[in-house]
Amino acid sequence: MCQLLGMNCNVPTDICFSFTGFQQRGGATDVHADGWGIAFFEGRGVRLFLDPQPSSTSPIAALVRNYPIHSKNVVAHIRKATQGVVGLENTHPFRRELWGRYWIFAHNGNLIDFAPTLDGSFLPVGNTDSERAFCWLLQSLRQRFGAAPPAAEALFDELRRLTLELSGHGEFNYLLSNGDWLIVHCSTKLAYIVRQAPFAQAHLKDQDVSVDFTTLTRPQDRVAIIATEPLTDNETWTTMAPGSLWLFEDGAALHQAATVPGPLRKPAG
Amino acid sequence: MCQLLGMNCNVPTDICFSFTGFQQRGGATDVHADGWGIAFFEGRGVRLFLDPQPSSTSPIAALVRNYPIHSKNVVAHIRKATQGVVGLENTHPFRRELWGRYWIFAHNGNLIDFAPTLDGSFLPVGNTDSERAFCWLLQSLRQRFGAAPPAAEALFDELRRLTLELSGHGEFNYLLSNGDWLIVHCSTKLAYIVRQAPFAQAHLKDQDVSVDFTTLTRPQDRVAIIATEPLTDNETWTTMAPGSLWLFEDGAALHQAATVPGPLRKPAG
Repeated sequence: MCQLLGMNCNVPTDICFSFTGFQQRGGATDVHADGWGIAFFEGRGVRLFLDPQPSSTSPIAALVRNYPIHSKNVVAHIRKATQGVVGLENTHPFRRELWGRYWIFAHNGNLIDFAPTLDGSFLPVGNTDSERAFCWLLQSLRQRFGAAPPAAEALFDELRRLTLELSGHGEFNYLLSNGDWLIVHCSTKLAYIVRQAPFAQAHLKDQDVSVDFTTLTRPQDRVAIIATEPLTDNETWTTMAPGSLWLFEDGAALHQAATVPGPLRKPAG
Repeated sequence: MCQLLGMNCNVPTDICFSFTGFQQRGGATDVHADGWGIAFFEGRGVRLFLDPQPSSTSPIAALVRNYPIHSKNVVAHIRKATQGVVGLENTHPFRRELWGRYWIFAHNGNLIDFAPTLDGSFLPVGNTDSERAFCWLLQSLRQRFGAAPPAAEALFDELRRLTLELSGHGEFNYLLSNGDWLIVHCSTKLAYIVRQAPFAQAHLKDQDVSVDFTTLTRPQDRVAIIATEPLTDNETWTTMAPGSLWLFEDGAALHQAATVPGPLRKPAG
C-alpha cells in the first residue's frame, strides 16, 4: 500500500509545508520506503520528480521540500510495493499525453486479476497494476470521446463509469490531473481540507513544524489538499466516503458521485 | 538555437563531469538561458528534470551536477528560444511512450513551415516546432511498424527516411533515445568522443575542472559523449558530418547513414 497527496488551488501555490510532513512517511514516520514521486503542473507543462529511494532520505525530496515550485495542481505518492519490483519504471506518479495535455496518475491500492486488452495507444512501461489501470483509463477515454476532449461533467461521468468497473478488482484510491482538474477517487481511505479565508495556523502531525497561512495568503486564495491521512493535527479534515469520486477545480469540489451504492455527503468547500 | 548533450554507455555512468561544463553554457559562458532539461534512463524508467530557468543558476541543475545518477542513456538540452514562448511545456527534452517504452527527444535547430497532419496518437502540449517534429516522428514509426517494435536496423532505416523529410524544413540536429539506443542526427553541428581504455585525464573548456577517468573506470567501460560543441579542451573530439544519422549502443556507433548526398566518414569507436 501507498500514500497519496494531492493539491488543487485557484492560484499557483507551493506545497513545501504539506510535502514536509508527507515526505516523513516515506521511511521515517511510516513504512512507505519503496520510492516516491511528485508532479507539479505549471500551466500545461509538468515537472515530475521520481526517485526509487525512500523519500525521507532522498536528496531530490530535500530539493522539493526547500525549493518552492508554485503550481495549481500537484500529485504526489510514496510507495510500499504490492505489485511490481522497486524500480524507477514502477514509481508513481505516471504521466501520459492525451488530447495535447499531460495527464498525471497515482494510485494507492491493489487491483487483482486486472488484465485488460490494451490496443497499443497507451502501454505500461513497468509492471504495476497501477500503470496498467492508468493506460486502460486513458485508452477508454480516447475510445469514448475520440479526438475532442470533453467538458468536465462528461469526463467526470465517464470516469465514474470506468472507476466502477476497476473497483471490482480491488482497492483503487487514485489521483488524476490534467493541470485544470484534480480528480480524486476514494476507494477506502482519503481525507481533504479546503483552506480559504479566514486563514489560520497549521501544525504538521509528522514533524513539529507550523505555518501561519494568514501571512502567506490573499483573501481570495483557495487551496484544497487531499491526503491518505490528514497531514495536520490542529485543523478539521473531512474524511471522504469510501466509494466516492470527486472533481476539484480552483480549490473547490465541483462534482461528486458515488462509485458504490448508498448515500454520499455533499461536497464542502 | 540551443545546445545538446547526449551520453550512451555500456555500463551505468554518471554525467556529473560533462554536465558541469554543459550547464555553464546556459547563461554563464553562453547565451542559452531560456530553460534546460535532462533525462536519465534507469533501465526502462526515466528521470526527467525540466526547468524554464537558466541552467547556470538553477537549483535543480545544482542538484543534478552534485547527485550522481547512473545511467546508460542521457539526453540534455539548454534552450535559446526560437519558436514557442519560454515555459515549462516548451522545455526539452520531451517524453512520450511508444511500444511500452519511453522515448526522449531533444532538438537544436529551427523547422520552418512544418505543420504535419497529426492523427491524435501523439499531440504536442506546447507550441514548439521541436515537439511537433517529435510527435510526427513517433506517429510515423507507429504507422510504419504497427504494434511490434522493430529491430535497431529497421528502426534506423525508417528514421533516416523520416529525418530526410524533416530536414527539408530546416536545421534539425536531434537526440532520440528509448533507453537502449541513442540516435543522433547531425544536421549542422555536433561532435562526439568515445572514452574507453586506456583512460586519461580530461579538462573542461567551460570551467577549470578536471577529472581523472583512470581512477573512475574499469577496463571494459565505454562511454560515448555527444555535444553541440566539444566539452573538453585536451581530448580529441570527432566532428560529425553535417547530414549524418548515427545510432549508438553500449557506447559505440553501430549504424551511420547520410541524410544528405555525399561521402561519410565511417563511425569510429
